[in-house]
Amino acid sequence: MKAQNSKILLFPFLFLFLTACETEENTEVKAEEKAYSNPLPSWNDTQTKESIISFVHSVTDENSSDFVEPKDRIATFDNDGNLWAEQPYYFQLKYAIDQIKVMSVDHPEWKDDPAFSAAIKEDIPAILQQGKEGLIKIMMTSHAGMSVEDFEKSVASWISSATHPKTGRHYNEMIYQPMLELMDYLRANDFKIFIVSGGGIEFMRAWAEDAYNVPKDQIIGSTIKTEYLTNDGNPVIMRLPELDFNDDKEGKAISINKFIGRKPIFASGNSDGDLRMMQYTASGKGKRFILYLHHTDAEREWAYDRDSHIGRLDKGLDEAKIKGWTVIDMKKDWRVIYPTNN
Amino acid sequence: MKAQNSKILLFPFLFLFLTACETEENTEVKAEEKAYSNPLPSWNDTQTKESIISFVHSVTDENSSDFVEPKDRIATFDNDGNLWAEQPYYFQLKYAIDQIKVMSVDHPEWKDDPAFSAAIKEDIPAILQQGKEGLIKIMMTSHAGMSVEDFEKSVASWISSATHPKTGRHYNEMIYQPMLELMDYLRANDFKIFIVSGGGIEFMRAWAEDAYNVPKDQIIGSTIKTEYLTNDGNPVIMRLPELDFNDDKEGKAISINKFIGRKPIFASGNSDGDLRMMQYTASGKGKRFILYLHHTDAEREWAYDRDSHIGRLDKGLDEAKIKGWTVIDMKKDWRVIYPTNN
Repeated sequence: MKAQNSKILLFPFLFLFLTACETEENTEVKAEEKAYSNPLPSWNDTQTKESIISFVHSVTDENSSDFVEPKDRIATFDNDGNLWAEQPYYFQLKYAIDQIKVMSVDHPEWKDDPAFSAAIKEDIPAILQQGKEGLIKIMMTSHAGMSVEDFEKSVASWISSATHPKTGRHYNEMIYQPMLELMDYLRANDFKIFIVSGGGIEFMRAWAEDAYNVPKDQIIGSTIKTEYLTNDGNPVIMRLPELDFNDDKEGKAISINKFIGRKPIFASGNSDGDLRMMQYTASGKGKRFILYLHHTDAEREWAYDRDSHIGRLDKGLDEAKIKGWTVIDMKKDWRVIYPTNN
Repeated sequence: MKAQNSKILLFPFLFLFLTACETEENTEVKAEEKAYSNPLPSWNDTQTKESIISFVHSVTDENSSDFVEPKDRIATFDNDGNLWAEQPYYFQLKYAIDQIKVMSVDHPEWKDDPAFSAAIKEDIPAILQQGKEGLIKIMMTSHAGMSVEDFEKSVASWISSATHPKTGRHYNEMIYQPMLELMDYLRANDFKIFIVSGGGIEFMRAWAEDAYNVPKDQIIGSTIKTEYLTNDGNPVIMRLPELDFNDDKEGKAISINKFIGRKPIFASGNSDGDLRMMQYTASGKGKRFILYLHHTDAEREWAYDRDSHIGRLDKGLDEAKIKGWTVIDMKKDWRVIYPTNN
């Protein structure tokens, strides 16, 4: 599985979700309450939780030398493996496979195409045997050639019906409850939260706004090219089967500069793909908080790090130790993993 | 001047600013007051003002069939000639020329270069005689080859010192007071405001956040490519002399989809370069408001439309009439043009 999965690493942009089922108003009220009574209730009372709260106090206290103006309180979060799970393979690839299955009804000839037929059988090793071309064919066929509205509807429909083979949950129920609380806590302290993911920007926006209470314009990800067309006098933005920008590694720092225009003071991620975002965030003047999530819980979730081909955390783990960044030990630091209303 | 200026039209991305001199807090307080007492005080009591207020009432009244949820209250504003002046030529080109002058001290050889020597003399016809290559050379030399931080400092320094040849005002004092009030009024009614400009995204962000009380991440414009480098272990984002995206015409609809992820319900612009944004906004379901600014005030500002090579408004004027869009008659509808504290 390792050699095969390593190919997925080449295309983090090709893959990558969920819903907290709270209305905006309710979340806001809850966030405020948490900020002033018991923030982060799903976090155990460990050093990790203490470090987060201590950082937030110091940058929001006007009398502190570490005080940061609200407009500069920018927090960036990776998505896959950081806000929701990513095993056994990126959920966005699962969406692609499911779409190919549906589309194949109108394409009997796909049975003779090795990439499509592997997707129809949901045979991951066989898909990966087709190499980059096969993967791109599957991703672009399932993700392009329609309007942005039709794509959004398709993803929204999928997320509300498909379920994960191990947990039986909808994919948008495999978000991390402690991270929802962390985002609430930061929002209540006037942080502006952005998601900065290698996943597709429009794939995420179809469900992540509701799931995380983060507005679409604060969700950043990889993009494919689009084209403005007029259809019966009506403007339509069509998705083209061509990569526009791969929002991973260095790409994360570049897209933060392009979409946000200021350096974050708080960055949260779980893999080496986030390391550039971490370094970029840490390089700013003043107090910063760098938070790595280490998947250590084989029982309640998954345990993986240096040798994993999905969400590999190797260089990041070393650098976190050297730089004194905070590393979440999922098993020890989190009281619960997924929202409990499911 | 017409034939020469027409070349500028080819590169709207190459050009394009200012500062209201109000603190965020003050603006917020004022916005609230205006919303509930006398909104848009610098607008005369004409049909234009009535139409704006009537629209805002209808989409914010929960009992109205036109009610729009706050998260969908997206308003997009063009910048050049819409939020600040643009005559006799885009202010961003003036910045470029001023930079070339400063840089030329270290480049005596530029005297022998027709494009650079024309810029040093501030001879616009001679610059335009150099064609696209000459303009690009001037723009890229002045706008690239430095870190994003150094570019921001350079623009901020320029905007606080350079003055307009006709008005004697700083360029960030040539913003339109009525448009500041309109943005305040919309914000007070839970609209989220974005600037969508053909001008450079980082040129604008250096001053427009303060000028318009619009956060950097809500300022969208043309981009040049950037590169992530490590300098003595410190991450730096360098500006490269290559266009990334031209945020004009169809580009505005494409960038709205990419950066914002939802269709606006309110769009404001002043030229044919904004027409695609207008059509895209108008194509959404439900009540929409399309607002064109017509420059009709030769005395207090400038008067130009169909024949102008800066901010040409021709097709847009026709379509506004056919579609019943609202057109601001600057001379009749605006009590004042620029902020009065200057």
